[in-house]
Amino acid sequence: MFAHRHLLGIEGLSREDIESILDLAETYVTLNRQTDKRADALNGLTQINMFFEASTRTQASFELAGKRLGAAVMNMSMAQSSVKKGETLIDTAMTLNAMHPDLLVVRHSSSGAVNLLASKVNCAVLNAGDGRHEHPTQALLDALTIRRRKGRLSRLTVAICGDIAHSRVARSNMILLGRMENRVRLIGPPTLIPPGADRMGVEIFDDMAKGLEGADVVMMLRLQKERMDGALIPSMREYYHRFGLDAEKLAAAKPDAIVMHPGPMNRGVEIDGLLADDINVSVIQEQVEMGVAVRMAAMDLLARNLRARNEPGGAAR
Amino acid sequence: MFAHRHLLGIEGLSREDIESILDLAETYVTLNRQTDKRADALNGLTQINMFFEASTRTQASFELAGKRLGAAVMNMSMAQSSVKKGETLIDTAMTLNAMHPDLLVVRHSSSGAVNLLASKVNCAVLNAGDGRHEHPTQALLDALTIRRRKGRLSRLTVAICGDIAHSRVARSNMILLGRMENRVRLIGPPTLIPPGADRMGVEIFDDMAKGLEGADVVMMLRLQKERMDGALIPSMREYYHRFGLDAEKLAAAKPDAIVMHPGPMNRGVEIDGLLADDINVSVIQEQVEMGVAVRMAAMDLLARNLRARNEPGGAAR
Amino acid sequence: MFAHRHLLGIEGLSREDIESILDLAETYVTLNRQTDKRADALNGLTQINMFFEASTRTQASFELAGKRLGAAVMNMSMAQSSVKKGETLIDTAMTLNAMHPDLLVVRHSSSGAVNLLASKVNCAVLNAGDGRHEHPTQALLDALTIRRRKGRLSRLTVAICGDIAHSRVARSNMILLGRMENRVRLIGPPTLIPPGADRMGVEIFDDMAKGLEGADVVMMLRLQKERMDGALIPSMREYYHRFGLDAEKLAAAKPDAIVMHPGPMNRGVEIDGLLADDINVSVIQEQVEMGVAVRMAAMDLLARNLRARNEPGGAAR
Repeated sequence: MFAHRHLLGIEGLSREDIESILDLAETYVTLNRQTDKRADALNGLTQINMFFEASTRTQASFELAGKRLGAAVMNMSMAQSSVKKGETLIDTAMTLNAMHPDLLVVRHSSSGAVNLLASKVNCAVLNAGDGRHEHPTQALLDALTIRRRKGRLSRLTVAICGDIAHSRVARSNMILLGRMENRVRLIGPPTLIPPGADRMGVEIFDDMAKGLEGADVVMMLRLQKERMDGALIPSMREYYHRFGLDAEKLAAAKPDAIVMHPGPMNRGVEIDGLLADDINVSVIQEQVEMGVAVRMAAMDLLARNLRARNEPGGAAR
Repeated sequence: MFAHRHLLGIEGLSREDIESILDLAETYVTLNRQTDKRADALNGLTQINMFFEASTRTQASFELAGKRLGAAVMNMSMAQSSVKKGETLIDTAMTLNAMHPDLLVVRHSSSGAVNLLASKVNCAVLNAGDGRHEHPTQALLDALTIRRRKGRLSRLTVAICGDIAHSRVARSNMILLGRMENRVRLIGPPTLIPPGADRMGVEIFDDMAKGLEGADVVMMLRLQKERMDGALIPSMREYYHRFGLDAEKLAAAKPDAIVMHPGPMNRGVEIDGLLADDINVSVIQEQVEMGVAVRMAAMDLLARNLRARNEPGGAAR
Repeated sequence: MFAHRHLLGIEGLSREDIESILDLAETYVTLNRQTDKRADALNGLTQINMFFEASTRTQASFELAGKRLGAAVMNMSMAQSSVKKGETLIDTAMTLNAMHPDLLVVRHSSSGAVNLLASKVNCAVLNAGDGRHEHPTQALLDALTIRRRKGRLSRLTVAICGDIAHSRVARSNMILLGRMENRVRLIGPPTLIPPGADRMGVEIFDDMAKGLEGADVVMMLRLQKERMDGALIPSMREYYHRFGLDAEKLAAAKPDAIVMHPGPMNRGVEIDGLLADDINVSVIQEQVEMGVAVRMAAMDLLARNLRARNEPGGAAR
């Protein structure tokens, strides 16, 4: 039983926790495909999306998830807020906390900022990405996509390719895939592999042909162009030549391998546009679809625990 | 019976389609004047407003329309979104599509962008203005305003005045008014009349006194100041002198002529401020009111078709 | 009985009006502390938040208040709107009015702008701060906080400290506290005391030790850094030394004095950070909590009057 108060990272989740979220998410996949998408899991609850870093797609996914579940949803674009007036992160959090949100969805550019914030507030906090630390709902939506396509979420060979060192998506996925007993490979130039990765139970490659050999799943990462400063990556053309995924490189993977990308894509940088659009191998749109369902499931489970805690007999709020 | 999947322009609508929308809109005019404005036509549905061009008033009108009908409404300010990160229009559309919206309201600066997008998604798309192409809900709200004031929507003389060449409002209105068998006149400097207008069944004037003679309806257009570059229009003062509507010029029209403007107005440029505020002739506020009702009607009709298509026996989504 | 059509300022409120709002707000304090925060006072009504000045916290408070009461809430960020295209305040207001909002929450940088707007529209208008004029819901939330902490809202000594001359918060509080028969003191450098304050029934001090002596309540104001131009205030360090509140200066007040601040705080400028966080004396978070409840109460009461006016037998809308 999922008994957590917050969803701060994959790190704190057991196999059973992960499976609980994915199983519940399946019911929301079905709901979201209907014309009438109403559910009532968050009726009467208040959800605040607090994005210190802009993110159209993740914020939209959480917003739709909350609205379909009946929550009162409020977006706060923190880039334009009191933070500008010199208010601290904690003051901002305490102010919001005093308005009694039930679910607080937070994205922040600093690793650990979301955990700090969670320690200060009474509500359930969901990490929507913090620095290079974690992005748990992304790993969960990737897991759901894999499970649906491969029929299982273990004993698979998963290659994660690209700028792994700076990626919270890669980090959360590595933890989740490891926990579910998959074989994880990292492929990228040595400058983009996180230090100490060799002690994390993963295999490391700087050659796509070798790294993709026999892979069931190929996860491409978005290349942050602002890091392409000559120090880490020689040039975009060179990068695409060596690490950009196209049909030719993909031929090294299993014949039924699937291709994933967290979006937004740089077509022609980390992935070939035609391959990204090939519905026989690319599951990129499905990942987006699973994102809404996984977030509905996570918020539903956290709300159940919130209610249990606030009920007479539970711990007082 | 209105059987369309999208509302992309007036071009594709029959007389009967137009009348269906206006008739249903009348019921929403009544609803919107009550304190309790709840309706349930979009209960359980998701509406996404995707404005690539900012527009306070049109977006607000669609947002209120959706909320009053019970939809979960999400605004995406695309100017600040992933589009900035180099994502293509189609990638953005496919991403949103994967989140299963039911109604997608789109404004874009390129003519044809909304039609392209509609061809890629599963949901109903409403064009909220694309380039110089169409702005169908504006023409429909103008039509409803005229019908209420004049008791009919045909056999009227309607003068459209100003920057017609760059105006999607003018274009959608010309199509609608022509379809309903009205006499349409275009008045403006030759540089602001679209090429080929003389073959479109309209009369063309570059003199307000002549063009307004006997008009039942005078539609002023907003002058885009960025086009006043000396090439197209000599100066604002000169423009106002020749083409700005004031009580004196209006005297050429019928005694009971009404004055319309899609807003926002440039007072003292294309229209005299006093005339715009004269509730005996100006119906500008009523146009705004009709806008919400017409959008409610259009979304209601599209949602009915969406449900019919998704029902057992209908085409699978 | 609260019989007002708008909430434009404390100026127009009687003791009974103030008490009606605070009494009803108490029920919303209780509701907001529950997991299920649903109420139905604004079901079917449309609330528009029209902020010409950005304000994360006040707008959030009104937004949550409306959503929890069941309203369809729409935010309009007027900084990015048609106002930019040269539309006047009144044109913008008339346009919104034509969309039939029921409650219009307005913040504007000009004193009197909200009253002007209220005179033009059919709906109930709530002033969320206009220039240096009034910020009535702030004074009401301060009053509720004081009443809960002190057990009464009269016969108290309240010191308002800082930049009083430019503060609508101070002005609304002075009127409310005077009306409830409290003893009000203003403390600040003479350049920041409003002219004529000596004729307003308050005591004026330019020394914290004397001004705080025996105070039950200490209200600090935010120092607008843009006013620290050398003309009004010598330097931030000097200001903090003389007028910044810390534990030492607070010792002059009553032992059970409470410390208030409307937020966002400049820690180390007008208030010591440790003191602000000391839950034994600081009620700053409670003020934020009371803010949502007071706004729910105010909107609930205005909606009741709106419904009564629009009912058969009431004045037609």
